[in-house]
Amino acid sequence: MMSRVPIPPHRDAFGHQVWAYFKDHRSPAEIVERDDGFVSFSENTAWYFGDVRRWSASERRAIRLARGHRALDVGCGAGRVALHLQERGFDVTAIDNSPLVVKTAIARGVKDARVLPFENITRFGSNTFDTVVMFGNNFGLFGSRARAKRLLKQLHRITREGAVILAQSLDPHQTRQPAHLAYQGRNRRRGRLPGQIRIRVRFNEFVGPWFDYLLVSAAEMSAIVDGTGWDVDRFLTEDPRYVAVIRRV
Amino acid sequence: MMSRVPIPPHRDAFGHQVWAYFKDHRSPAEIVERDDGFVSFSENTAWYFGDVRRWSASERRAIRLARGHRALDVGCGAGRVALHLQERGFDVTAIDNSPLVVKTAIARGVKDARVLPFENITRFGSNTFDTVVMFGNNFGLFGSRARAKRLLKQLHRITREGAVILAQSLDPHQTRQPAHLAYQGRNRRRGRLPGQIRIRVRFNEFVGPWFDYLLVSAAEMSAIVDGTGWDVDRFLTEDPRYVAVIRRV
Repeated sequence: MMSRVPIPPHRDAFGHQVWAYFKDHRSPAEIVERDDGFVSFSENTAWYFGDVRRWSASERRAIRLARGHRALDVGCGAGRVALHLQERGFDVTAIDNSPLVVKTAIARGVKDARVLPFENITRFGSNTFDTVVMFGNNFGLFGSRARAKRLLKQLHRITREGAVILAQSLDPHQTRQPAHLAYQGRNRRRGRLPGQIRIRVRFNEFVGPWFDYLLVSAAEMSAIVDGTGWDVDRFLTEDPRYVAVIRRV
Repeated sequence: MMSRVPIPPHRDAFGHQVWAYFKDHRSPAEIVERDDGFVSFSENTAWYFGDVRRWSASERRAIRLARGHRALDVGCGAGRVALHLQERGFDVTAIDNSPLVVKTAIARGVKDARVLPFENITRFGSNTFDTVVMFGNNFGLFGSRARAKRLLKQLHRITREGAVILAQSLDPHQTRQPAHLAYQGRNRRRGRLPGQIRIRVRFNEFVGPWFDYLLVSAAEMSAIVDGTGWDVDRFLTEDPRYVAVIRRV
């Protein structure tokens, strides 16, 4: 998970959650708090460590479409995607804004993992990457429609001709939970996309910083991508999730 | 779980957690937030529904010591203790301060379940009960040393000669978790028992009210009980938990 600045160590709840699993092989729950007070939990932590055979069907299908030689893994977590692409011979740069997550990824063998907020991809040179991966719902790291458009243009700059973005999202409209529908209604009235959720991670005594995470339908994603130098080629659907294969125009 | 007043419906996080399991047989996690920001979770909800064969060994041993005819189940949850004692022929009054928990207990067959804060046992007549059960760490519902002493004297008044309290606690000193040790140190400096934790339940959009829950060692419990008209007869230990068999003097 990512936001605008690196997470300071005393707020690195997500990093501690991932690190605890890495060190102890206890699988702590992931507890996420939304700014309306809604809390959700999942037994998710082991998932950040999953070998490709354990990935979702749409991620497994999509990752075969990685192309070229240089890949950028956005929101790398414990490095599951970076490690897989390294094995396939890619030169991978993995970024995350959690110091402990990056420490975990490095300890697991990711050769180039960096604490770098997504905003700071401006530091990469033009024409650097052939593939950008945003798995694990990490299209969400774009945070908002405006920020997505801006960062997609940056991704256009730092990628080469023929590049591809493989980005997963979760359709927020596939819910009947009243609290979610009320939250989406408030977002609409404020001019935000319905699935722009403001959340933070809780882990033991660690309270992560608030950040915006953007969940979109396929149609909403297409509208965002439009005019940024990218085109959605197709969606690999696995309701309520899907991976979009987005090609550089 | 209980505090000084009934929980208003829009704050009844624990009740919604129990009700969700009862209605859907989904087993939601129990997420508890402490006032230092520490969050813990457990896959606990099914446990509130457990048949006696699934209870912990110390609870199973202790419940055989229930005596007489009239029993009070304090913090009844989904009614696992009340239902068991009813089957054994006891006339059981089950109290809880969560409206939805009491609704669940009634729906499951508890004949006399009431929304009643523990403080309000003053309403019961003298010499009413033969057995008081506080399982599931519910010695904690005493909240603090002073409140425990006061309520134990009330329990003396509303029980008959020869009555027994069967109360479970969790020894808070059996931990090496730095956040817990720091919390206990702050409690000591404020003159509170180390294991007096201020917590609230979170469930989906529901944020429960803060309440004090008292975890004590066997020695701390003995010191609390002393002078209240009760004596600890023995401890049925199952580290870090134990059930105290407390006899009316």
